[in-house]
Amino acid sequence: MTLQTIQTTQLDIPPGMIHLGIGQPDPSLLPLALMKNAAAHRLGHDDGSLLAYGAESGDGYFRLALSRFLTEHYHKPVDPDDLFVTAGASQGLDLICTLFTKPGDTIFVEEPSYFLALDIFRDHGLNIVGLPMDENGLMVEALEEGLTQHHPAFLYCIPTFHNPSSITLSAVRREQLVQLSQAHNLLIVADEVYHLLPYDSPPPQPLANYIDTGTILSMGSFSKILAPGLRLGWIQANQALLQRLVRSGLLQSGGGLSPFTSKLVQSALELGLQRDHLVKLKTVYGQRKDFLSAALRRHLGSFVAFSEPRGGFFIWLRLPEQIDAEALQPEARQHNVGFQPGIRFSSHQRLKNYIRVCFSFYDTPELETAVGRLADVLKNHRQSG
Amino acid sequence: MTLQTIQTTQLDIPPGMIHLGIGQPDPSLLPLALMKNAAAHRLGHDDGSLLAYGAESGDGYFRLALSRFLTEHYHKPVDPDDLFVTAGASQGLDLICTLFTKPGDTIFVEEPSYFLALDIFRDHGLNIVGLPMDENGLMVEALEEGLTQHHPAFLYCIPTFHNPSSITLSAVRREQLVQLSQAHNLLIVADEVYHLLPYDSPPPQPLANYIDTGTILSMGSFSKILAPGLRLGWIQANQALLQRLVRSGLLQSGGGLSPFTSKLVQSALELGLQRDHLVKLKTVYGQRKDFLSAALRRHLGSFVAFSEPRGGFFIWLRLPEQIDAEALQPEARQHNVGFQPGIRFSSHQRLKNYIRVCFSFYDTPELETAVGRLADVLKNHRQSG
Repeated sequence: MTLQTIQTTQLDIPPGMIHLGIGQPDPSLLPLALMKNAAAHRLGHDDGSLLAYGAESGDGYFRLALSRFLTEHYHKPVDPDDLFVTAGASQGLDLICTLFTKPGDTIFVEEPSYFLALDIFRDHGLNIVGLPMDENGLMVEALEEGLTQHHPAFLYCIPTFHNPSSITLSAVRREQLVQLSQAHNLLIVADEVYHLLPYDSPPPQPLANYIDTGTILSMGSFSKILAPGLRLGWIQANQALLQRLVRSGLLQSGGGLSPFTSKLVQSALELGLQRDHLVKLKTVYGQRKDFLSAALRRHLGSFVAFSEPRGGFFIWLRLPEQIDAEALQPEARQHNVGFQPGIRFSSHQRLKNYIRVCFSFYDTPELETAVGRLADVLKNHRQSG
Repeated sequence: MTLQTIQTTQLDIPPGMIHLGIGQPDPSLLPLALMKNAAAHRLGHDDGSLLAYGAESGDGYFRLALSRFLTEHYHKPVDPDDLFVTAGASQGLDLICTLFTKPGDTIFVEEPSYFLALDIFRDHGLNIVGLPMDENGLMVEALEEGLTQHHPAFLYCIPTFHNPSSITLSAVRREQLVQLSQAHNLLIVADEVYHLLPYDSPPPQPLANYIDTGTILSMGSFSKILAPGLRLGWIQANQALLQRLVRSGLLQSGGGLSPFTSKLVQSALELGLQRDHLVKLKTVYGQRKDFLSAALRRHLGSFVAFSEPRGGFFIWLRLPEQIDAEALQPEARQHNVGFQPGIRFSSHQRLKNYIRVCFSFYDTPELETAVGRLADVLKNHRQSG
């Protein structure tokens, strides 16, 4: 390892490139001063318990602070005993796969779905079946039909500000989905990490509000609302489901998953720092969303179709049917612009004419430049195609 | 959740009980001031990269600091590129199971072995086969014999200051084990979390020093030498093995496993705080080990047999053949003393007349009281038996 090759973050963007495929918070919005204050506050207490093996469900006082925070946003009281602390949503999902599936099991996902969740499912040897979505989210009829042919270990879905499509499952569909899950004893793994990031009106209530049915594991995370480097999230579910996590070998051996970072974030919650930061993020991301939407319409209006998102991180662009977005990537690299091709989000190697672009990572000048470059790539392709 | 029931750490010891079964650092030895200094140092840099999604292998500068620390202790240069950062040894082991095994696979363990690792293996549906140990550690001949009957996905072993037996695999056996692993392409998952805690002479070189063979994944951790609440450890292995971890869905989705805590510990390493703390721990734990050994001989000399450990956390007591240690537990609870019965460490429901006691968690006055109580329990049992 030479000093030139030392990598600190997950990103490895070629110099000069603006990579709209990156679905992460803007580094300049990562709250270093906030975390410094939270750390000073927490480590100023004469209490070393955050350095010990933690309670398997997560520290009780942290879960209490988190439950109060979620109660404000979910418009329904959240019981701290229904919360289990994870090391982020990905880790929570991996643990759920270990404990609730075995290789060869079928699971249902939405088509499209979060591409890296699909990789976690593949690592667990799962048979992935995609179900169609429309503008109101997962088509519950298709799920009902699917249940006549399969006995899935669970349905993985992203109900609010979906990754990559930004679609939000309608309130009516949520009721139907929950009823269906009860009728078929279908476990639903709801990835609700974008739920706290609406930019217009509030979304319908999260699936977390239905955990009393006993069919729902709702995953949340501080990665989108505070800082991904903390590796801190939660699963909200009823006791019977949570106990399977708590009693696992991993939890019994290592104790709670994030004792130290959760106690620092407890201070951020109790001091109101998380609340203020979330207000700021919603303002900034909302502006960027508006800006990127307008830039896409201006530069590419006749060429692409998309629904303007109401929250989250992403815009999902449909290109003309005959275009294979993956094949555009060499050209895009030459133009110093990046995106995620739609095929990566498909469990069936479809969606070739879609691309996902993200508005959270770059500020508006870079977004403007990037869309201009993307327009050049598509224009060249049209001329040469 | 009422205020009375709020749990912060993994421990839930009845008031008045001294539980020698707890295999954790003493809470009073958890370095709160050290971590406060490390946090102030790290968060004083104007660098928010520790809050971003981290490089999948772990932050490069942290791995560099860790490699220098390990080079001092392993007496062989450690290459930072051979290190992969985990969220603790348990998490590393869980990830290895996900990526290197499937349910129904056989794995080899030592008999006895770390009981909570056995639980992780059971969660992954693995078929666990135990191999005998003697005073020089795992019997390599038995492994060779086992390989004629099984094709294990890996051998899990604890070469140095074994949990629970405290036995250290001899230098000769290490060479034999490595040669055998090469001859049979046998993957060895070496749990070396106690290697840095010798109290007399240094142990033989770690299996980490043989990673060039390509058959070894060596797991280390800050849980025993700094603070388990950080959930920070590492796997040392050659590139081919590490790339399977790096390319997993979990790592691609969530990024590196402990970006934030690893950067704080980087400061602890660079400022020499970890080195000083380890010196202190070895002094204190060494004294406690001597004290507990002497107390056991004094109170129970004619009744139990054990080899005095040379490092680690544990003493492994052999009781008379006819005693079932698990059956002693109600009586022990009445006497306000706890221990781990040997059967928990057996993959074959054996070792019933063994118990594991730990000298790291309590100071000498409690150790003295506990051994007195244990002697009463055994004396009562002998009289009534």
